[in-house]
Parts: sequence; structure tokens; C-alpha cells
Amino acid sequence: MAPILLNCMGNERNEYIKYVKNPNLETMEEDILYHLSLSTKTHNLPEMFGDIKFVCVGGSANRMKAFAQFIHKELELSGNPEEITDICEGTDRYCMYKVGPVLSISHGMGVPSISIMLHELIKLLHHAQCQDVVLFRLGTSGGVGLAPGTVVVTEKAVDYSFQPQFEQVVLGKVITRSTELDEEVASELLQCSSELQNIPTVIGNTMCTHDFYEGQGRLDGALCSFSHEDKLEYLRKAYDAGVRNIEMESTVFAAMCRVCGLKAAVVCVTLLNRFEGDQIKSPHDVLVEYQQRPQILVSHFIKKRLGYVV
Amino acid sequence: MAPILLNCMGNERNEYIKYVKNPNLETMEEDILYHLSLSTKTHNLPEMFGDIKFVCVGGSANRMKAFAQFIHKELELSGNPEEITDICEGTDRYCMYKVGPVLSISHGMGVPSISIMLHELIKLLHHAQCQDVVLFRLGTSGGVGLAPGTVVVTEKAVDYSFQPQFEQVVLGKVITRSTELDEEVASELLQCSSELQNIPTVIGNTMCTHDFYEGQGRLDGALCSFSHEDKLEYLRKAYDAGVRNIEMESTVFAAMCRVCGLKAAVVCVTLLNRFEGDQIKSPHDVLVEYQQRPQILVSHFIKKRLGYVV
Repeated sequence: MAPILLNCMGNERNEYIKYVKNPNLETMEEDILYHLSLSTKTHNLPEMFGDIKFVCVGGSANRMKAFAQFIHKELELSGNPEEITDICEGTDRYCMYKVGPVLSISHGMGVPSISIMLHELIKLLHHAQCQDVVLFRLGTSGGVGLAPGTVVVTEKAVDYSFQPQFEQVVLGKVITRSTELDEEVASELLQCSSELQNIPTVIGNTMCTHDFYEGQGRLDGALCSFSHEDKLEYLRKAYDAGVRNIEMESTVFAAMCRVCGLKAAVVCVTLLNRFEGDQIKSPHDVLVEYQQRPQILVSHFIKKRLGYVV
Repeated sequence: MAPILLNCMGNERNEYIKYVKNPNLETMEEDILYHLSLSTKTHNLPEMFGDIKFVCVGGSANRMKAFAQFIHKELELSGNPEEITDICEGTDRYCMYKVGPVLSISHGMGVPSISIMLHELIKLLHHAQCQDVVLFRLGTSGGVGLAPGTVVVTEKAVDYSFQPQFEQVVLGKVITRSTELDEEVASELLQCSSELQNIPTVIGNTMCTHDFYEGQGRLDGALCSFSHEDKLEYLRKAYDAGVRNIEMESTVFAAMCRVCGLKAAVVCVTLLNRFEGDQIKSPHDVLVEYQQRPQILVSHFIKKRLGYVV
């Protein structure tokens, strides 16, 4: 009876969205989320995660722990925010913290690293029967024609040729997926920024590369075969195509969320203006303050959605 | 006078190899290795790293710390191996440990993540004026037609279409680099395995993918649009092309080391046989023992090269 009951529950709500797109998962006796060190047999996922409404992901484990502690204070939850524990402590691949309806997870650097986490996160949301979840990537990036510290809410995540697409290899064949993000969430975030002080924010395209040096036109890698002028020409073309920042995860994040019916936004702060240099030279405390900006913005969005602020 | 003297020193040795291939580095006043939290201005890199002869890299920070402690004991160095410190403690992107002439570094998961580390590592070796360095990637992988626990020394690192090449985007243009590895180091590693017990080892091709689920033909991701038979057919084709294991970093590792004139090898243990399943189900202690096998093999290689064993 159980599966039928489950289906009825889903149908009753009408808008029930099944985030996973894989019929095989229904017939598996156990699903081991290997890189999260969780499993459907060893953990009660609906009980642990069923109330999740917001998932925030970012590259650095320390930063995502700091965000969890920050949102804990912002939501005025009980308990000591310093004592939150890493749910994925059985592995060092990713870190995960749960704070009320908010999940904060690290994803490492680059498309493959975030894609492993997203596969297992989306299965987790499915097993836990979560609904109406919004995902945010909170990241750092190189700015294109923006003052350092500017927050970019991504309109379109584009590839190295400025196309809003993600090329995925499936069994040796290349398929192309759209990288459109949720317009409503993006404009709500822009509205939030106008209600805050000292969070300069723009909406623009975000270029996602698979390399930090040659792929982003940096002159300071171990390898460099192009000139300063070549670099500037590429950045100018990017700017003309609407690109305002460059990072390394947005296309697969947008593509997977879109395929799975998850509303998603990418919110990255720029650490430098790439027209002016390649090295990240700002003092440590300035960089730390910059990295708090996407957190403050997304926290404000969450508090508004939860009715903490009007 | 200093640059001329440096050049003379290089020429005197005849075989001096400049690992970086970027003329811009000569004119930079400071080089910040941002993701390693090191810099030419704040650290004396020749003093810290000048004696490095072996660099071992692997995905997991915990595993690379364990390897550093293991090689510390194997080389019978003074000091407490439990007290080794993370040289990159200023960042959580990577971990780095130095043990005599051996450097042990984590690189995260996937090509972009390891490529950032390799750019900065190769610049580090250059700034520290290291010579005659051998690099090893010690990893985990999915086996193709091998018993779990088998160690694969990579002959050729191949892409999803089984070609020994790596596609790198440079300023929006795709260039192709060769992924050939050092034959001598590979056969020396195979010889080492024959001198050890319980380290079953083969030489074979290693397929590098940018995705753990769809890209490797797994049926258990959040997304799956192919059948069990489609999966087996792809794995059979891979096997026929000489592929014996699948991981996510080998092509860029091989390509960058080759371009920079660094001798390199990829040594990965298989955690499962992909013809028999997708999920990693072996008990934790079995997986831990498997993961020690590449470490034991590479440690034996290093001890032989250093004259510890004949």
C-alpha cells in the first residue's frame, strides 16, 4: 500500500514536483549518497531533511559553515550557532549544515565537483520528499568591468562562447542543456539588494569556465601563450555579450536545476576587475567582507520569504 | 646581474628544465599563489620547497594527510608524523604537507579543481627552483572488468571517446593537448608492485570524465535517460579500447605535466567493478585498505629511488 499512498499524497497537492528524473531510483533497495556519506538505509532522510525550503551552496567549506552560523543568528533559532555540526562528517568531500529550513553545503571548485554534489543533493531532496525548494549558489568570481565587491545576480549562465548552454557527455555523446535561471527569484534578489546598505548589486550574465587561468584569459598561470592585448579583446567580447562576471560552476548548476524543476539563482561577488588585473591582491579582511555580501543578500531573501521582514 | 647568474646556473647543469611556460612570470614583482595561500613575497619558496623531488597529489584532504604521515614513517624521518602541519592552512581549497623530499597535496574532485592546483604547484616548483621532480596522482576510480581493489597504473589517459587527448579552452578557442605519461615511471611502478604483497596491479588506459553519473554511465544519478544495456555497451566499448578504470582528473594532469616537462604517473585503485554495479557498497574498512594500496606502491617507488631499498 505504501507506494500508492505516497502517490495519492503527491496528487492531492496537484503541484507536486518530482525533482529526480530517473525511474531506476524507485526500484533500488538502498541508495547510498556516497560523497555525502548518507544512505536511505542508515539515515531517516524525510525526518532529517523533510522541512528544507532553501538550499545554499558554495565552493568553500569554511564559508558555507560561516553562512550556516550567520543564518542561524538571522533566523533567531534556538541553540548555539557555534555548535552546529557537519552532517557529512563521514567524508571530507563536502560539508553540510542544516539550520531550520535552510541547508548549507560546500561543493568544491569546478563543474565536475559541484555536479557530483548536485546529483546526490537532488536525490536527497527526493528521498526526503521536499517540495517548493529554492536553490542558491553563493560564490566568488572575477568581475568584468565592475568595481571589486559588486554582487552579480546571474541572468544567464553562459559558456566560453557566451552561449546559455551546458554541454553534458552522456555515455560518450555530447548533449546540450539550457542554463536559464528563474527570473522571478533573480528580480526578487535585486529588490532585496535595494533594501540593504552596502550591497552593490547588478543583474548580468555569468561566464562559467573549466579553468581558472588559460580559460579565463589570465596572464599569470604556469602556462600562457597569449598577449595582454589578446586577453583584453576576449574580455571586451565577453562584456559586449552581457558577461559581468566569471566563475566555474554556474552552467551545470543552472542546467541541472532546470531539468529537475528546481527554482535556482546564482549570486556571486566579484573579488577583482579582470580588466585591471589577474591576481587577487585585496587584503584578507576586505575579501572576507566581500564574501559576506552574497550571504547577507540571500539571508534577506530567505527572511522575507519566511515573513521575518516585510 | 642576478638573472644572468640564474641563467648560468641553469646552463651549467645542461639538463635544467624550466617547468613553467609563461614569459610573464619573469616580470612580475610578486606572484600570489592564491588557492595555496602562498606568495613569493611572503614566503621563501626556495628555502621551503627547494629540496622537493616527489609530489603526490590526490582528491581527498584526509587521504593526502594520511599519505604524508605514512611516508614520514616509511622514510624514518625525525619528528612526530602526527604533528605535521598543513602548509596551506590559510585556505580551505587545498591541503599541503611536506615530508622530506616529498610533497603531498589534495586537489579536490574533477579536472577544473586539479587544474587550479597544478598551475599553482608548477609555479611553486619554478619559484623554488626545483629540478628532477616526479609527480604522482594517487586516486580512487571505478574499475572496468577488474576485481575491486586492483591498482591501475595508467598507460594512457583518455577522454570520453577513448582518445589520449585533453581539450583545453584558451580565450574561447578549443586546443587539444596530448595526455601521454612517462613510460619509464609506469614500468618502474609495475616492477615495484611485483616486489610487494597484496597490491594487485595492472597497466591500462584510464578514462577521465567530467561527471560521475551520466558521464560514467551510472544508472543511479538524479538524472538517467539510458538503459542498463546502453550502459553495458558503453563500458564494453571502453574495455575494448583498453580502458581499465574511470576517474575524473587524469587527462588534465597528464597534459599539463607533459607540456611542462614534468615526469608523471597516475596510480588509482578501483573501488568497484562497473560491469557489476554503480554504487560503492564495500564496507568502510575495506575501502580504507584499498585506498592505502596506491600509497604503499608509490612509497615503495620513492624508497627505491632514494636508495632505502634495493
